[in-house]
Amino acid sequence: MEIISQNKVHGGWLKRYQHHSDVLNCDMVFAIFLPPQAEEQAVPVLYWLSGLECTDENFMQKAGAQRLAAELGMAIVCPDTSPRGTNLPGEHDSWDLGSSAGFYVDATEQPWASHYKMYSYVTKELPVLITESFPVTDKKAISGHSMGGHGALVCALKNPRAYTSVSAFAPISHPSDCPWGQKAFSHYLGDNKDNWAQYDACDLVAKSSSPIPILVDQGSADKFLSEQLKPESLTKACKDNDFSLTLRMQPGYDHSYFFIASFIEDHLHYHGKALGLL
Amino acid sequence: MEIISQNKVHGGWLKRYQHHSDVLNCDMVFAIFLPPQAEEQAVPVLYWLSGLECTDENFMQKAGAQRLAAELGMAIVCPDTSPRGTNLPGEHDSWDLGSSAGFYVDATEQPWASHYKMYSYVTKELPVLITESFPVTDKKAISGHSMGGHGALVCALKNPRAYTSVSAFAPISHPSDCPWGQKAFSHYLGDNKDNWAQYDACDLVAKSSSPIPILVDQGSADKFLSEQLKPESLTKACKDNDFSLTLRMQPGYDHSYFFIASFIEDHLHYHGKALGLL
Repeated sequence: MEIISQNKVHGGWLKRYQHHSDVLNCDMVFAIFLPPQAEEQAVPVLYWLSGLECTDENFMQKAGAQRLAAELGMAIVCPDTSPRGTNLPGEHDSWDLGSSAGFYVDATEQPWASHYKMYSYVTKELPVLITESFPVTDKKAISGHSMGGHGALVCALKNPRAYTSVSAFAPISHPSDCPWGQKAFSHYLGDNKDNWAQYDACDLVAKSSSPIPILVDQGSADKFLSEQLKPESLTKACKDNDFSLTLRMQPGYDHSYFFIASFIEDHLHYHGKALGLL
Repeated sequence: MEIISQNKVHGGWLKRYQHHSDVLNCDMVFAIFLPPQAEEQAVPVLYWLSGLECTDENFMQKAGAQRLAAELGMAIVCPDTSPRGTNLPGEHDSWDLGSSAGFYVDATEQPWASHYKMYSYVTKELPVLITESFPVTDKKAISGHSMGGHGALVCALKNPRAYTSVSAFAPISHPSDCPWGQKAFSHYLGDNKDNWAQYDACDLVAKSSSPIPILVDQGSADKFLSEQLKPESLTKACKDNDFSLTLRMQPGYDHSYFFIASFIEDHLHYHGKALGLL
């Protein structure tokens, strides 16, 4: 593991590392914010999964999360959004498939299956590396935006005991039923819809044995709202299955990081409470 | 004046506009953050001047200033850092001269003099446009980073009654005596050092008739500290002239927006007090 950069911010440190991922079979970069408390004691971790076209950098530069994370004593880890440097056929042709669009699934179809295992990377390999390498506890929360909001919901619903809490900003709530999700799932997972259901929050809610309450913020002026994000599908799935969902429609807000910055502190408080920091 | 984009953020609105500047003789873009209070009443304005290689966007995306500005009821205006679209000879050849490097002076030398009048744009033309177009009072504060920190100091020292307060992050404190400033000033202002002194904070402090207290934050790990920024020159000039300077050396911080984000709220409080918001 090799350090790429470090910046002091709000009394803590933002560090970026490159490492070889066995799961993804390529070199990957991630970012970690360590709050000042981490110099004295182990701190819990919020994992943040970013959206299409993002890397590990967007959230750390634009969300304004470090101020409160430094106050609460919470580390934040941002993985990248897909394998890198693999140059598979077609990998760089679309902004919503391949590079920057891993969709947090374990691909079963070629050419993707040899690298695109972002689900296992985010839920297994990366947390082990983080726990071994930094002063963090084993308490983990998870959140994300858009494709990363879908990722956060899926990771938490499939591993309800691994995360204390889950939240999402403008998640792709029902990927099996929207163009982004259908394109990605058909390439990564093939035609069998049973496999798609393994990575669809609306299907997972129906199957989950161990409920974990969900917090979602969604901007009402988000241009992807009705075609891609479909929060009403998540609402229905949660209602049908007695699953606790707090969905906050935020009037006038769009899909940008300005929306995330406006409400990230509510999410940090929510996770801070679940992580025992409040 | 034409609106380019708008994003709701922290209950207020970030809007970007394009307009024709008579002073600069080209089209320009600026950003304005209007806090929620601006829907009911006129609010005072903080002008933010950005550094080399920046546009109107960097501060609005990375500084995390909107949270407190929305709470205080403070508008923020970010101009661009140079004329645009003029394609003068050599304008796009260096990152520290021409495009994105206007240095907030009124150029007297060709080919720059026909466009590079950023001092007059920032202190005269833009404030008139802002006051005419938005619900703002005539109370103005000014701040900036690096080249923009130099710009903020110069604008305030030359117009002490126009601004209630001035602050800077890692300003180029003594441009006549550092490589960045010498390169820019020799091209924009020619060889006569008397003309350089009109845009050098250390010289202006000695001449100012109406003291305005200065707040400066400077990271101790800033790689430009000793060669380009030289806060010790500003300290000496202020001391020699009984000028009030609060210079805070911030251990471990670098030149990035992570440094700005860490201390921007202190600056907003400082300006908020001077603007009568606290």
